[in-house]
Amino acid sequence: MSAPTDSPLTYASAGVDIDAQDRALVGVKRLARSTFTAGVLSDIGAFGGLFTLEPDNPAGQVLVASADGVGTKLKVAQLAGIHDTVGEDLVNHCVNDILVCGARPLFFLDYFASGTLEPGVMVRVVEGLARGCRANACALLGGETAEMPGFYARGEYELAGFVVGGCRRDRLLRREAVVAGDVLVALPSTGLHTNGYSLARRIFFEVLGLGVDSPVPELGRTVAEALLAVHRSYLPAVGPLLERGFVKAAAHVTGGGIPDNLPRALPAGLGAEIFVDSWDEPPLFGLLRRAGRVPEDDMRRTFNLGVGMILVVAEESLGDVLESLVPHGPGWVVGRVAGEPGVRFVRR
Amino acid sequence: MSAPTDSPLTYASAGVDIDAQDRALVGVKRLARSTFTAGVLSDIGAFGGLFTLEPDNPAGQVLVASADGVGTKLKVAQLAGIHDTVGEDLVNHCVNDILVCGARPLFFLDYFASGTLEPGVMVRVVEGLARGCRANACALLGGETAEMPGFYARGEYELAGFVVGGCRRDRLLRREAVVAGDVLVALPSTGLHTNGYSLARRIFFEVLGLGVDSPVPELGRTVAEALLAVHRSYLPAVGPLLERGFVKAAAHVTGGGIPDNLPRALPAGLGAEIFVDSWDEPPLFGLLRRAGRVPEDDMRRTFNLGVGMILVVAEESLGDVLESLVPHGPGWVVGRVAGEPGVRFVRR
Repeated sequence: MSAPTDSPLTYASAGVDIDAQDRALVGVKRLARSTFTAGVLSDIGAFGGLFTLEPDNPAGQVLVASADGVGTKLKVAQLAGIHDTVGEDLVNHCVNDILVCGARPLFFLDYFASGTLEPGVMVRVVEGLARGCRANACALLGGETAEMPGFYARGEYELAGFVVGGCRRDRLLRREAVVAGDVLVALPSTGLHTNGYSLARRIFFEVLGLGVDSPVPELGRTVAEALLAVHRSYLPAVGPLLERGFVKAAAHVTGGGIPDNLPRALPAGLGAEIFVDSWDEPPLFGLLRRAGRVPEDDMRRTFNLGVGMILVVAEESLGDVLESLVPHGPGWVVGRVAGEPGVRFVRR
Repeated sequence: MSAPTDSPLTYASAGVDIDAQDRALVGVKRLARSTFTAGVLSDIGAFGGLFTLEPDNPAGQVLVASADGVGTKLKVAQLAGIHDTVGEDLVNHCVNDILVCGARPLFFLDYFASGTLEPGVMVRVVEGLARGCRANACALLGGETAEMPGFYARGEYELAGFVVGGCRRDRLLRREAVVAGDVLVALPSTGLHTNGYSLARRIFFEVLGLGVDSPVPELGRTVAEALLAVHRSYLPAVGPLLERGFVKAAAHVTGGGIPDNLPRALPAGLGAEIFVDSWDEPPLFGLLRRAGRVPEDDMRRTFNLGVGMILVVAEESLGDVLESLVPHGPGWVVGRVAGEPGVRFVRR
């Protein structure tokens, strides 16, 4: 199962260049700021965009919006002919992105594009979207179905989504509330969620030479089952904590992993220690690491490694938070907020 | 310029099956309805989705949302290496879709996907998005940049967008206000807008054998210039008419043309007569019709034919409406609401 490759695989060697994305983001941020109106409360780069219809009301409703895709997890679904889970992945990904701002979802719209519309496939994709929406009490309000001959090959489709949620302005999670010494509580992921698929596909399909239906004995599942595990929504676990005011800030661990996403939940000048011995990594990640000889830094910037969301809580709330999470996970203490910038992976 | 083909070209023969889309839509509508919460005011199939935070307030704010893509106009932009206009197309398309509900845009999010991120290309795309957003006083609130190796070929990218606008509930345009005898006022388009590109590309590039840089003497422009003309935003022209209460309903003429889009602005049981001799079709459409030997019904269901938006106004408002439109177009009387269903193209 873990035949070594000739050279280690990194996310960049699989074709994804996170640093190029970061450089482009500088220009994009400048352009986006040139459009900002009085209602905009957030800057580009937050998990969700914040907009208020009442700029002068400190307790008014804030709309929190996020756009996302499913990435090349789509390719796995298309190879396996399993089309009814990627919609759920997408809705849950979007819901998590606004949840870490403090918002609950209101409505969702999708964009579905293919070369030639296969109505049966499209309806199965929407089944997944609808299941995800119902589970998050979020209305599937509309969408666009694009038929683009010559743009997508037969059997391929693209899927993107967009969520709008709401939050009272004085209940928004704000990283400015975080102080050194606050506790980081991890919530378990259900698999790769929707990140790292370019590298994971390369390892499973090229390095290991497996197909989507191949069994993976050490995982007790087929490749498709392992790779298509649905991205979890953290709304049922985290919603009650938000209502009780127990969460200061939160990070959704997506592309860039813990090192790139956790700092988005921390104020400038602060960082974090992550206790690497605080959890047992799910076996899927160990398999990817060994088979692809993936350097540890790439593993951490590519995959969630079993941690799908991190909550920042005050020491005095910790007991209540962990107790409340038990039926949902449970969560565990994965680290501490530190007085200097940067994310360090340490042993306790 | 107009060498005939062996067989007439239709949108279906170019690979787009609008009827298959319609069949899939039935299943999709049922699934979407299963997610509807108390805030949903619209049904799927309207130009924009309607959602209210105050279901019991008849004068409360309604959020109006729409998702769109650029279709295979993207392919023309990519062939021509002109990347800074498709974003404007997309924003204006989205803005028009909620404008016909009565809403003004609040914020916009984009989804940009490519195989390998080319930061220079992406920044030019966002320049177009930002220009479109500024012109519509709409904040570019966020977006997703997806790098999907193996999914998109080098030089290709996908672009989709989502807009959210606002409208007071008692100011929403409602097709129930329309009665037989109401006047249809057309607003001129600036070109193909974002529809019919699969057929138009086939005619220009395959039938006529032209390249993006080929001059088209009868249009006085190159192919790229003719095909990349920016989709017009009707907000500056129509916004003041909405404020003065002069518009009963409106249709954005996109995929499906006047026959498929105008009925979306009419109540059940009513239809329309379109006066085919009321305007001079821009020469681009005549060229496409002749070169592709496109049947008239396909022309009408594929292209806007020079009519980008249709407003439904009461006879007594007509003078004010036409006068107000002069600096923006101007508009003209393109037809009448009829007492029986269906859109008929007639000569006056």
